[in-house]
Amino acid sequence: MSPSTMILDTINSPDDLKKLKRVVLPDLAEEIRNTIVNVVSDSGGHLASSLGAVELGIALHYVFDTPRDKILWDVGHQTYAHKLLTGRRQLFPTLRRHGGLSGFTKRSESPYDPFTTGHSSTSISAGLGIACAKRLKEDSAKVVAVIGDGSMTAGLAYEGLNQTGDTHKDKDLIVILNDNEMSISHNVGAISSLLSRTFSASKLQSLRKEFGEFLKSLPRIGENVYQFAKRSEESFKTFVTPGMLFEAFNFEYFGPIDGHNLDHLIDILKNIKTMDEPVLLHVITKKGKGYRQAEDNPVYFHGVGSFDVDTGICRKKTTNVPTYTEVFGNTMVALAETNPHIIAVTAAMPEGTGLVPFAKAYPERFFDVGIAEQHGVTFAAGMATEGFRPVVAIYSTFLQRAYDQILHDVCIERLPVVFALDRGGIVGEDGPTHHGLFDVSFLRTIPNMVVMAPRDENELRHMLATAVQHDGPIAIRYPRGRGTGVDLDDGFRILPIGKGEIMEHGDDLLILAIGSSVDEAVCAAALLRQNHHIRATVVNARFVKPLDDELILPLARSIRKIITVEENTIQGGFGSAILELISDHGIQDAEIRRLGIQDLFVEHGPQDLLRRKYKLDATAIVQAALGLTADREAALHSDLQKANRYATGR
Amino acid sequence: MSPSTMILDTINSPDDLKKLKRVVLPDLAEEIRNTIVNVVSDSGGHLASSLGAVELGIALHYVFDTPRDKILWDVGHQTYAHKLLTGRRQLFPTLRRHGGLSGFTKRSESPYDPFTTGHSSTSISAGLGIACAKRLKEDSAKVVAVIGDGSMTAGLAYEGLNQTGDTHKDKDLIVILNDNEMSISHNVGAISSLLSRTFSASKLQSLRKEFGEFLKSLPRIGENVYQFAKRSEESFKTFVTPGMLFEAFNFEYFGPIDGHNLDHLIDILKNIKTMDEPVLLHVITKKGKGYRQAEDNPVYFHGVGSFDVDTGICRKKTTNVPTYTEVFGNTMVALAETNPHIIAVTAAMPEGTGLVPFAKAYPERFFDVGIAEQHGVTFAAGMATEGFRPVVAIYSTFLQRAYDQILHDVCIERLPVVFALDRGGIVGEDGPTHHGLFDVSFLRTIPNMVVMAPRDENELRHMLATAVQHDGPIAIRYPRGRGTGVDLDDGFRILPIGKGEIMEHGDDLLILAIGSSVDEAVCAAALLRQNHHIRATVVNARFVKPLDDELILPLARSIRKIITVEENTIQGGFGSAILELISDHGIQDAEIRRLGIQDLFVEHGPQDLLRRKYKLDATAIVQAALGLTADREAALHSDLQKANRYATGR
Repeated sequence: MSPSTMILDTINSPDDLKKLKRVVLPDLAEEIRNTIVNVVSDSGGHLASSLGAVELGIALHYVFDTPRDKILWDVGHQTYAHKLLTGRRQLFPTLRRHGGLSGFTKRSESPYDPFTTGHSSTSISAGLGIACAKRLKEDSAKVVAVIGDGSMTAGLAYEGLNQTGDTHKDKDLIVILNDNEMSISHNVGAISSLLSRTFSASKLQSLRKEFGEFLKSLPRIGENVYQFAKRSEESFKTFVTPGMLFEAFNFEYFGPIDGHNLDHLIDILKNIKTMDEPVLLHVITKKGKGYRQAEDNPVYFHGVGSFDVDTGICRKKTTNVPTYTEVFGNTMVALAETNPHIIAVTAAMPEGTGLVPFAKAYPERFFDVGIAEQHGVTFAAGMATEGFRPVVAIYSTFLQRAYDQILHDVCIERLPVVFALDRGGIVGEDGPTHHGLFDVSFLRTIPNMVVMAPRDENELRHMLATAVQHDGPIAIRYPRGRGTGVDLDDGFRILPIGKGEIMEHGDDLLILAIGSSVDEAVCAAALLRQNHHIRATVVNARFVKPLDDELILPLARSIRKIITVEENTIQGGFGSAILELISDHGIQDAEIRRLGIQDLFVEHGPQDLLRRKYKLDATAIVQAALGLTADREAALHSDLQKANRYATGR
Repeated sequence: MSPSTMILDTINSPDDLKKLKRVVLPDLAEEIRNTIVNVVSDSGGHLASSLGAVELGIALHYVFDTPRDKILWDVGHQTYAHKLLTGRRQLFPTLRRHGGLSGFTKRSESPYDPFTTGHSSTSISAGLGIACAKRLKEDSAKVVAVIGDGSMTAGLAYEGLNQTGDTHKDKDLIVILNDNEMSISHNVGAISSLLSRTFSASKLQSLRKEFGEFLKSLPRIGENVYQFAKRSEESFKTFVTPGMLFEAFNFEYFGPIDGHNLDHLIDILKNIKTMDEPVLLHVITKKGKGYRQAEDNPVYFHGVGSFDVDTGICRKKTTNVPTYTEVFGNTMVALAETNPHIIAVTAAMPEGTGLVPFAKAYPERFFDVGIAEQHGVTFAAGMATEGFRPVVAIYSTFLQRAYDQILHDVCIERLPVVFALDRGGIVGEDGPTHHGLFDVSFLRTIPNMVVMAPRDENELRHMLATAVQHDGPIAIRYPRGRGTGVDLDDGFRILPIGKGEIMEHGDDLLILAIGSSVDEAVCAAALLRQNHHIRATVVNARFVKPLDDELILPLARSIRKIITVEENTIQGGFGSAILELISDHGIQDAEIRRLGIQDLFVEHGPQDLLRRKYKLDATAIVQAALGLTADREAALHSDLQKANRYATGR
C-alpha cells in the first residue's frame, strides 16, 4: 500500500518546491511523512528524527537558495525529507541498501549535501568553515547548520559556537537548534534542562521585582566580599533563558518557535536570511511527529529495523540468540551484584550499549554523560583514581572521539578503566562513518593498554569478568548484532591476560584469528581439511595486546605458513602485531597473509555481504590458505566452487 | 643570589601552612614568587602561569583539607606554588630536569596531585568523576577544579560543566575559573569576550529601563512571529554576564574577585567549602604577576627557557640555525604569497606553531580557533570543501584530540587538509604528556591519509609546498627545536608522493629511516663503514604512507638485513609499515630490526638524553647493525667503545 504522493511527485529539486503555494505545503509534509514511514518500515533507519524534521526540511529549501546556500544537517540522520526534496525521490526506496542512498548526508551523493556526516556535532564547525570560506571568496551565499539539542551536548559544538561568536571577525552563520528534548535517548545535562526553561508572565513580574531590588543594593559595595559576590549574581540567576546562553556566544537568538508550523518557520527564516551576523533559531519539534507509534516511543524508533506500519511492531525474525549488546548488559548487572566498585558510563547510549538493565538495577552507579565521549573517558579516569572500576561502554566508532583522553588521562597513569567497544568491525547499514574498523589499531599502539576481542558472546562474559578485575586500562571490542548462539556458562572465568587458545590442530597451516573472525577460521579449517587435505592449526588469540608469544612463537616457528584474520583495518592491526612479534623474534622464513579490511573506507550494506565482499569470511580464508600452500594451482579451481557453495549456503 | 625563604622554609606540608597567621601570607607569596623566578630562570618552565596562581595555591591549601580534599589543577603548568607548599620544596630546583619534578601535576609524584595532567581542560571531568566517587563512598571530602579561561574554550570543559550541572543528581564540585584573559596566547572566542564583560552602575540603570519596556510589550503576543521572537530575546541580551553563563549550567556563581587578594580568596573559599552543590568561583589573576618582565610579556614567559632574572633576557646561546617552527612559519608566508587558497588554522598556538608572521601578513586567512583541536580540524574540513587548502598547525600530542575529526570529517571524503604536526617525536622537558610519539601510528592507519616527515628543515619547506598542492589529506610531522643547519633552497620542489631517496649505497645492510632519524642513520652508516667495514644503504623514506615500494622492495630483496628507525612508537609505526610491505610482497628471509620507542611512555628530560636512552641515535643504529651482521661477536666490543666516544662528542 503506497501512500499518495501527488505533490511530492512533482518535486525534482527545490526549484519545484519553491513554485508551490504555501497552502499546499502541509499536504506535502503529510506525503513526505507517509513516504518515509513506508520506506523505513521496510529498510529500517532513523525514523523518529527524520519525521521530526519534515517541516524544517521543507521550509529551508523553500526559503534558501540551495545548493548555492549550504544546509548542514548535523549527524545527517534526520534528512530523509531533505533527500526526498533534493532529487533523490526515486532512489529513496534504496535507502540504506547496499549501493543505494546513504542514511546520512554524503557529499558524493548530492550537491545538496555539502558535508558528509554520521558522527554528531560537526555542523557548526564545518558550517563556520564554509561561511569563512564564502567570506574570503566574497560569495554572499548563506550557510545554515541544523543541530539537535542532543548534539549540542558535545564539546565540538561548543567549540564551534565559541569561535563563531568571536567578536573580532563577523561570521555569518545561521544555526538552527532542532530541539526535541532528546538526543538518541533522553537528554542529560544542564543544557537540556535550560532549554526547557520558559517564562510565564507572572514569573516575569516577580523577576522585575527581584531585579529592582538588586539595583537598589548596588551602592553598598563595602560589605563583605563573599556577600557581595553572592548577591551580585544571585539576583540575576533566574533570568537565565536559553536565549541568554546563545547571546553569551554573541549569537542573535530567536525563538523558541514551533518547528512543525510551516508558516512561522518560513516567515522567520525569510527574516533571518537577510541578517549578517551569527544567528541561532531555536525550533521545538517532536521526534517521530505524525507517526503515532514513533511519537509514543521515540527511543525505539530513533534507529529501527523493518517494522509493520500499522502496529509499529518490529518485523525481525524472533530468535533466542541474544545480541552481544544484550549479553554485555546482562553481564554488567551480574558482575555488579558482587562487585560494588563497578560503575557504568555511557555517552547518550543507554539503550544502544545495553546498559538499561544496569541503570535500573544500580541507578546510582550508572552515569550517562551525554554525547560527550571525551568527557566520559576522563570522568571515568577520575572515578578510577578513587578505587572504582568504571566500564565505559561506547561504540567503537564513537570512541575515536576520546583517543586523546584514553591515552593521556587513562593510560599514562595505567588507571583501571574498562572500555567496552560495541559495534567493533563492520556495522552494516550505517556505513563508512560508523564501521568500527580502526579500534584494534589505535588502541594497541597505546602503552599500558590491554586489548581483547571475544570469539563469541560466552567469551564476552568471561572477558568482561576479567576486565573488571584487571588493574589497568583494558578494552573489549565485540561486533554489532547477534551472538553465535553458544550456550552461556553459568559462572565467570578469569582469563589469563595475554593468553590465547588453540581451537584446531594441524601442521600445514597456522591461522591466527581474533574476535568474530575465530569462527570463520574454524570453518575454513574444516573446509581445508575436508576438501584439500590441508590441516590447519587455528588459534583464538583472544588478546591483540599483549599477544600470547608463548603460544604463537613455537607454532609460527614450526608451521611457517600463517594467516591472520581480523575485522579491522590491516594497517597496524592484529596482523601487523603478529608481524612485529614474528620479526622481533627472528623468525625469518614465515610466509604470512593478513586478512582484514584493506586501506579504505567501507561503504554501507548488510554485514554478511560486506564481510564476504571484503574477504573476511571462511571462503576468503580458504582462498588465502590455498594461495599459501604448495598445491595451490591444482586445488584452487575446485575449491573456489565449493567455497562459494558454502558461502551462499547452497 | 638566592631569595629569602624564611617562611617557606618552615612549610613541609599544607599543615604547616595552616599554622601561619593570615598576615604573613603575603610575605610567603613573595618568597614563593622569588623562588619560582629563581628556579625557572635556570631550568625553564611555565613561569607566567605559575606566578599568576601563587595566592590561589596558598589560599586553597590554607582553606581545604588536602590531600583528603582534592585539588585538580587544569593542565598543571600553574602549580609551582602548589608544589612548593606540598612537600616538594627541596626538590623544586630539579623542576623539569631528567629524574626531577615534573612540570605538571603527576599522581606518582605526590599524594597532593590527584590527577596527572599536561593537556588542557581535563580538570572538570576528572574532578566530577572524583566527586561522584566520593558521593558513592559517602566520603564528604571536597573536590576543587582550577581551570584557566583559556582551557575553558575546549569542548571537554563544556562537556564536564554540562554533566556537573545535570539536575538529576546533585554533584558537589567546586570549579575555580582562573581568569587571566589569556590562554597560552591571547584568547579568542565568544566566551573570552563574555568573561571580560562587566557592569557599571549607569549601564545597569539603562538595563532596568530596557527590561521594563520589555515587560510592557509582553501582552501583544498576537504580532508577527518574527517580531515577537526577536523582541522577546533582544531585551534580555545585554543582561548576559559571565555568571549567567555558568548559572545556565546550574552552577552557583561567585565573583569575579581579585585572585591576588589573599584575604578575599580565603574568605570566599571558606564560605564555598560549606556548600553542597556545583559552585563556580570566578577569580581574576594576572599572568606573570610579581615579575615585571613576565607581566609585560606573558606570551613569551608562558613557557620559557632559562633567562637572566634581572633583564628577563633569554640565556640560550644564539645560533643562526632556525627552528623547524620558524622554517614552517616562514614557508607558510612564502607559499601563501602565490597561492591565495592557503589558509592557516591554529588551536591557541600562533606563537608555538610559528604562525605569527603568517597572521600578520594575511590576517584574513589566519584562524585561531582557541584550545579546540576538534573544532579546528572540522572547521578546516569545511573550508576545504570550498576550495581552500587549510594548513592545520597543531602539535603532535594535541592533534590526538582530533583523531576522530581527521578520520571522519577529513579523510572519509578525502578533503585536501594539510596537517602540520610540530613537536613530533621526543619533545624534552614537558615529558610523557607532551611527547609526540604516536602520530605516525595513528595517522597511517587512516585511509586516504598521506604521512610525511622531513629529514631536515630544508626538506620541510619542500614537503609543505608539496602538501598544499596535494589533492587530499596530508600530514607532515617534524621535531621540536632547531633544524640541522642545512642551507635552505631558494625555490620549492614538489616531491613526488610516496617517493623516498637513497642517501648512501652499500650492500651489507639496509637502513630505512624517516624524519629526524635520517641523519642519525647517515652517521651510523659512516661509522659502520669506517670502523667495521660494513657498507649500508641508507634510505630517507620521506613518506610513511604511501611507502616507496618501488625503491624499498628491490633493496630489501637484495640486502635482506634491514634496520628501520623512527622517533615514534614501534607499535604500528613506520617500522611496522615496512614489515607489512615486506610481508605482503612475499619477502621471507629478511631480518629486520625496528628502532623506535618501545611500548612505554617516555619520561621528561633533555631531547638528546632521551634519544640516547631510548636508542634512537647513531650509536643505537650501529649497535643494531652489528647485531644483524655476521661478524657481530667480534666487532661488538671495539665498536661500542668507539660509538660511545662519538655519541658523547669526545
